[in-house]
Amino acid sequence: MSTHEKSALARVALTWLAEPGTRSVHRLVDQLGATAALDLLLDGGAPEEGLRDSVAARSGAGDARAVAAEALARGDRLGARVVIPGDDEWPASIEHLRTLRLPEAHRRVDRETAPPLCFWVRGPWPLAEVLERSVAVVGARAATPYGTHVATDLGYGLADRDWTVVSGGAFGIDAAAHRGALNAGGRTVAVLACGVDRPYPIGNTALFDRIADTGLLVSEWPPGAEPLRPRFLIRNRVIAAVTQGTVLVEAAARSGATQTTRRAIALNRRAMVVPGPVTSAMSVGAHEMLREQPEARLVTGLAQVLEEVGRIGELAPVPRGPDQPTDLLDDEARSVVEAIPRRGTVGVDDLAARAGLPVRTVLRKLSMLDELTLVVRRDDGYALARRTNRPARPQ
Amino acid sequence: MSTHEKSALARVALTWLAEPGTRSVHRLVDQLGATAALDLLLDGGAPEEGLRDSVAARSGAGDARAVAAEALARGDRLGARVVIPGDDEWPASIEHLRTLRLPEAHRRVDRETAPPLCFWVRGPWPLAEVLERSVAVVGARAATPYGTHVATDLGYGLADRDWTVVSGGAFGIDAAAHRGALNAGGRTVAVLACGVDRPYPIGNTALFDRIADTGLLVSEWPPGAEPLRPRFLIRNRVIAAVTQGTVLVEAAARSGATQTTRRAIALNRRAMVVPGPVTSAMSVGAHEMLREQPEARLVTGLAQVLEEVGRIGELAPVPRGPDQPTDLLDDEARSVVEAIPRRGTVGVDDLAARAGLPVRTVLRKLSMLDELTLVVRRDDGYALARRTNRPARPQ
Repeated sequence: MSTHEKSALARVALTWLAEPGTRSVHRLVDQLGATAALDLLLDGGAPEEGLRDSVAARSGAGDARAVAAEALARGDRLGARVVIPGDDEWPASIEHLRTLRLPEAHRRVDRETAPPLCFWVRGPWPLAEVLERSVAVVGARAATPYGTHVATDLGYGLADRDWTVVSGGAFGIDAAAHRGALNAGGRTVAVLACGVDRPYPIGNTALFDRIADTGLLVSEWPPGAEPLRPRFLIRNRVIAAVTQGTVLVEAAARSGATQTTRRAIALNRRAMVVPGPVTSAMSVGAHEMLREQPEARLVTGLAQVLEEVGRIGELAPVPRGPDQPTDLLDDEARSVVEAIPRRGTVGVDDLAARAGLPVRTVLRKLSMLDELTLVVRRDDGYALARRTNRPARPQ
Repeated sequence: MSTHEKSALARVALTWLAEPGTRSVHRLVDQLGATAALDLLLDGGAPEEGLRDSVAARSGAGDARAVAAEALARGDRLGARVVIPGDDEWPASIEHLRTLRLPEAHRRVDRETAPPLCFWVRGPWPLAEVLERSVAVVGARAATPYGTHVATDLGYGLADRDWTVVSGGAFGIDAAAHRGALNAGGRTVAVLACGVDRPYPIGNTALFDRIADTGLLVSEWPPGAEPLRPRFLIRNRVIAAVTQGTVLVEAAARSGATQTTRRAIALNRRAMVVPGPVTSAMSVGAHEMLREQPEARLVTGLAQVLEEVGRIGELAPVPRGPDQPTDLLDDEARSVVEAIPRRGTVGVDDLAARAGLPVRTVLRKLSMLDELTLVVRRDDGYALARRTNRPARPQ
């Protein structure tokens, strides 16, 4: 057995001994490597009593290594592969979960926040590559026709613009987002809270089959694992971490669907929320999120979602064309330029609103931009100066 | 003629010579008094060429004093009174318009921002008193059934809680808000952009009759004045200034209905926006406002509107009961206490979200609150400590 195979087997065994995301297990693997960490735990050497107890309880039910070997064989038969850190397919973004520190007081959740030890993957794409440009679309299972419509549209539009649509495979919003992406002939990833061989809910079986054919089914749990209730929340951190942003479409009051969005915020991902009628119970959670989380951004459609996740790309070094005057601008001046409509003029009042800046700042920047001949002042407001090269805009 | 009558006549004449809100006229009145300011303008002594020209043009059409005297007589006949600064009825809040400074570049708007010189009032209530606890509900004329429903509900609920509902008397959202208030047997004020004897639109005549009977019709323009297009925008500053907050219910993209809300923000009033389906053209302006104005607060119903405008009241000195431990709390600690549910427990994560504070801050405040025996830590989170006197909450 190669070192890689040994590590994979140990990681699968560890995931069986303690639910994924357990920080103490992840720390041990960091310190000792997966194989030695497994040995230590099986010898009763877990550093915490809670973990010791749960390992003992699980070990009583079977031999962890044998269970893992069986899972790997089963995965082989159904065409599911195990992906572990160091593999080309391992998504680097998931390691950001290391930075997710929730308060000790919230212990149950804290136990669920470490990065996964491994992923089970079914489908034709390399996991890391597929997630490079990805957006999560999540929401209520009991979605309304309105929410279903919006999620399908978003799924379609994102896939059509070559973004991977990630969701949880549930009824309602999740399924609508997956379907929209499939209808666009694009890529979609369902991150499951159970084995990739028995996707849940079974009512979505045909959908899962299509996803396995043209996208990816992904899980931390081995084939055969059941969709136990707490696993959905554990799973959510993955959806939040591997995507550039999460769009919440519908959520009832205090719904679990909002948790993914909160995780996205905690991980510095874009958190986006689609509002709905205030008369709809299925938008109460979405509106709560917009009211209570300053980082959550209201979005009304594809263009605004792309604007949000597009910004992420801008931070990365990208191949550049010839220098442009706008390259010299500070963030505020750039915001002002970008807030001026392509055609026609805009008043300072509106411009300040569109740029999200105080009027005084906008006036100062405008006078600078005027000097640089980037904007012109007309009788009824300001306009972009005509240039051969228009200033770059977010897509 | 008494000094008061002379001043009222001069103010009516000045409003006829130059549209209400003209800053240079208001400054002159501040410096010289209304009568002397009128004399100066009629003698061609306006300090600005533009004002000089417009006064000359108007004077050519009639004798300003005679026009004003006629308007006052007409007002007398129809039971409309003139209210001027110094009168008991004059709403002090309107003087906050003095602080509304829009950029010079936006001249047309700047001309419209000074406080009114006078109000024409029709109805059984003292103007200042009626506006003391008031909320504006404004929005699209081409409202959808959804928006109409929400505005009627808000109008009803606010009036039912003894808040005066202020709006512009237009079709759609305005009319729905007025009707809701009337249906609750409460008070509502229509601020018009034309004479109080010829409320516009005439399709709302029955509504205006009911408002004149049980609420107030208010205008800066004398009886007979026409609802010229620019007057609606000039009027909006009054709606924003005399209320404690403005709720925007529906607005199309770049709609005039959003202007009142922007004025409210500029005046440090609460600006509230009701979201709607992203598929509705009539919510596009509302969502724009929420995206572009950080001060605009998403509200989903009466309780959240009351929470917003209620805070205003808290700033004012109010009669107090016996001291309570919570009186000693800083704002953040108070937010934490107020975010803990009356029954049951809440986790730190959720608590931070509800209080709108960083988790670290919440933990620090909780430990202090624990020491003060205001909160208790349970196995599954934090709860309010049981006390005879519950901490005060916003209504």
